[in-house]
Amino acid sequence: MRMAELYPFGEAVTIGSLTFTAEDIIRFATDFDPQPFHLDEELAKQALFGGLCASGWHSSAGWMKCFVSFWKGECKRLAAESIAPPKLGPSPGFTGLGWLKPVFAGDTISYSVTLLASRALASRPDRLLNTILCAGRNQHGEPVIRFESTVLEFT
Amino acid sequence: MRMAELYPFGEAVTIGSLTFTAEDIIRFATDFDPQPFHLDEELAKQALFGGLCASGWHSSAGWMKCFVSFWKGECKRLAAESIAPPKLGPSPGFTGLGWLKPVFAGDTISYSVTLLASRALASRPDRLLNTILCAGRNQHGEPVIRFESTVLEFT
Repeated sequence: MRMAELYPFGEAVTIGSLTFTAEDIIRFATDFDPQPFHLDEELAKQALFGGLCASGWHSSAGWMKCFVSFWKGECKRLAAESIAPPKLGPSPGFTGLGWLKPVFAGDTISYSVTLLASRALASRPDRLLNTILCAGRNQHGEPVIRFESTVLEFT
Repeated sequence: MRMAELYPFGEAVTIGSLTFTAEDIIRFATDFDPQPFHLDEELAKQALFGGLCASGWHSSAGWMKCFVSFWKGECKRLAAESIAPPKLGPSPGFTGLGWLKPVFAGDTISYSVTLLASRALASRPDRLLNTILCAGRNQHGEPVIRFESTVLEFT
């Protein structure tokens, strides 16, 4: 079954949530984004956002973490209903990523995916290119991240 | 001194390189992108790209890792010349991210930044918004990643 048959265009599906502990924020930032406001609670208090917050690359990768887990669950769910799950391929990239609000230590981000569009590739009609809106909101319901991604589907 | 005074528009500056070991690829993917072709050399051989390759989120975060290190060096270099370094703020996001080729275990990616544009914010004339092209090439000179990012600068 194809993505467009399973997920109505424009309807957000929650894919999971992730709590950003200070420990996780610091560990990720130590590896990939060692700036004071991602590494040290005291220094972060004096910085622009006023508190320890996650690297944007961390909150972005968190979306993928939730999606992989969600997708494994969906494949199982569909198999149990004898429905062949969509065969997803790699993503060529994405666009329009916005870090809308800081993700502070202790925040829990709920991530979602919304299928926006699906079309056959002119050069490879056996492949579809799906456009998806990927988003995350904190525990106050405030949007903190969004981007539009593309993902290949083999038919 | 402002970014636009230090870096000519359109000229790529190398910011560092990163070798993606199998161990690093697997560790990142275990946390954020646990798909077989990012986790297991044998399973990866049978997958689309034919070998263990890094999560795109890993090769993207690698750009930031190199940039933070580069920027610390630049600030030191400028201070030594008694030049006040540009005051960079957070990035509101980026656009047009392309994962152009897989990054395989053992690949070394050289990352670069190119200042594309700089403009004052209409709403906050004391702030500039810089547009930068962020890119990475593997050891064969092939582009593997690119995105256009924006970064605030306080004047």
